[in-house]
Order: sequence, then C-alpha cells, then structure tokens
Amino acid sequence: MAPSECLSVYDVIRLRRDVRAEFTGEAVDDTTLLRILDAAHRAPSVGNSMPWDFVVLRDPRTLRTFADHVAEKRREFHEALPADRARTFDPIKIEGIVESGTGIVVTHDQTRGGTHVLGRATVPETGIYSTILAIQNLWLAATAEGVGVGWVSFYDTPFLAELIGVPAGVRPVAWLCVGPVDEFQRIPDLERFGWRDRRPLDAAVHWGRYTDRG
Amino acid sequence: MAPSECLSVYDVIRLRRDVRAEFTGEAVDDTTLLRILDAAHRAPSVGNSMPWDFVVLRDPRTLRTFADHVAEKRREFHEALPADRARTFDPIKIEGIVESGTGIVVTHDQTRGGTHVLGRATVPETGIYSTILAIQNLWLAATAEGVGVGWVSFYDTPFLAELIGVPAGVRPVAWLCVGPVDEFQRIPDLERFGWRDRRPLDAAVHWGRYTDRG
Repeated sequence: MAPSECLSVYDVIRLRRDVRAEFTGEAVDDTTLLRILDAAHRAPSVGNSMPWDFVVLRDPRTLRTFADHVAEKRREFHEALPADRARTFDPIKIEGIVESGTGIVVTHDQTRGGTHVLGRATVPETGIYSTILAIQNLWLAATAEGVGVGWVSFYDTPFLAELIGVPAGVRPVAWLCVGPVDEFQRIPDLERFGWRDRRPLDAAVHWGRYTDRG
Repeated sequence: MAPSECLSVYDVIRLRRDVRAEFTGEAVDDTTLLRILDAAHRAPSVGNSMPWDFVVLRDPRTLRTFADHVAEKRREFHEALPADRARTFDPIKIEGIVESGTGIVVTHDQTRGGTHVLGRATVPETGIYSTILAIQNLWLAATAEGVGVGWVSFYDTPFLAELIGVPAGVRPVAWLCVGPVDEFQRIPDLERFGWRDRRPLDAAVHWGRYTDRG
C-alpha cells in the first residue's frame, strides 16, 4: 500500500489494526520509520516533559530471543484459561516479532523534566500517560504509511529491560512490531476469532454524570 | 475553522495543541461531539476490553465547581516552586474549564473484560494504557474538526470522582476541556512562555540498544 496524504484522521482511525499476521516480511525503511517516530515525538506531554524514548531493534537474534520469551508467556496464559476459552484462544496469533523485521520498544523516564513537572504534582501518572499518547501518534502515522503496528504485551518487563539495556529508572512500556503490510484486516482479530465483541458507543458515553450501564 | 477531510494524520498531529485560551465560548454541538467520541471508542485496547467511559459535563455549576478546585491546586503548585520558576509559571494558563463549555471526563474500569484479559496477564498496566490511547484518538479527531482539547491535571482524583458520581473501582483519569477554537497556537504554550523547550528527536531514538543521551 502506498503512502497516502489524502486519508483523513477518521479514515486512519478506522483503518488502524493491531497487526499480527499481515506483515510482508520487508523491513520498513529508515526514512519512513523516522517520519513515524517524529509523529510520535509530537505527542502532548505533561509539562512538556517528553518522557518517552524509542529503541529500534532489528538484529534477528534479538527478535528471536524476544519471540521465544513471548511464546513461553503465551503458554502460561493458555494454561491458566478454562477449556472453552483456551480453545477460542488457540488460533489467535499474538505477535509478529520476527516477521515484522523491526521492533520498537517504547520506554518511559519519570525523572525527565526535573522536580517540578507542570501538571504532574496532583496526578503523577500523567507522566506515563504522556508516553502512551506518543504510542497512539506512532500507530496512526504508521497506518497512514501502510505500515502495520502490533503491540506485544506477553512478556516480563525485567526480561525486556535487560535484553535492550534499559538503565534503572527507565521502564520499557511496549514492544511494537512495526513493518509494511499489504492490507489491514477490516475486523479486529479478537472479534473475528470470537474472543470478545465490541462494546457499543452509547454504553460508553454518559451525560452529566457517570451512570452504570454495563 | 470548518471541518476538513483533507488534513492528513501528519497535518493533524502537527496542528494539535493543548488548548487553554483559544476557546470561542460556543459549545461543541452533539453531532460533532459524538463523531469525536466515536473516534476515541475505536482505539486499540488490550484483549479488546475497551475499558474507557466518557462523561460529558456541561452544567455551568459543575464546570465552576471544578474550576474553583483547580485554581486551588494551581496555588499549591505555585507556592512549591522556586521564585524564578514561579515567575515563569505566572502567565501560563492551565485550564479552560468554563470557557470551553464542555468537559469530558475519561474514566478507566480495570474490571471490564473479566478475569482473563488477553495480553494483560503479564503487564496489568496495559489496561489503563488502553484508556489513554483512546484519549489521543479523541484529541486528534477533535483537532481535525477545529475543536480544541485541553487536558487538565491540576486536581485531586477523589474530588473529581465524587463530583461526577464515579463508582468505586472506576477511576477518572483525565478532565478534557473540549470546545471550538478559531485557531490553534503554532508553538505549545510551555515553549512560548519559556517553561520548557522541546527535546530533539534524535535524542529520543536509539538504535539496537538503549543508550543514555540525556
């Protein structure tokens, strides 16, 4: 899929998927990758602290080591499931670490911005929230480029921290598989495979006060 | 500013600002608001759990009560600053709660999705991360509509929870001031007012391994 400047942000939001199986096997080129990372880097952040970093991983041995760890975590989750859920889970692919050709680990540094971070005094979590906002910018920019992103969370954080040399005080918050795709699935995998359906919008919107509507 | 279908996601990412002072005073209409909330609701979420809710607040008394609380928290932050930082902080507007005409409180429900949330077993924080991703979708869709968003974090969470009737187990994570704007500032307020400059992209990107570059 060629880059398009004509997709609106609504188009891209609808097109975006959590990609596992659709990577072409080509690696994303550095120019495109840096355009995507620049979009991430333009996210809002509390007190303009910009507490995120992006570690780009392409060494096949690193990708394989992480994929093996994730496979083990997948097995543990599978074993904890009731039998009917385990059967539903079986065909669901949870990562494309090797196939995507590129991993981006997004890290968070809560010390960035010094002692008095404007807006973080009352809600300290706004630090990590800033880093997560950057991930969504990255994801949407990639989608507009025809580049798929798959967020892998089946891992132990200390394992990942050591694998990529993250110093104490910096936390890896996501491994993103990033690579060109031929197309995006129209229906999210977890709906297609019957894991969990969407909640309707009107259940999520409350007027004037929070009301419990399931 | 009229809605535009021709802005690319990169355009919108560059245009987006954390808005405080540019609200026109008109309230956003419900049709536009629901389009923006629908964009938020299409965010990715761990295990398709969709753990977010949106509470829309327009009663002027509610907006005023919250604005008074935020003013008090601003005073506390100001008093904790060294003198030179306090002077830099003085002209910086931190909220547009009343002027925007609409508050959206985004809440997070970690119980949504049941016991076995696919992908959340190893990294439980991916629940709240999902809710934050929805906020960035909301922010970008609003920007494309000429609607400003300002994230207010100068508040005590229990105060906000009680104000809008959030039940135990559900957490308010953001108050967003949402309203039409005539234009977006080109430079973020915290840079314009000399609070904190941007970090360059190349400091944030690491190749192959995390390397500490400040």
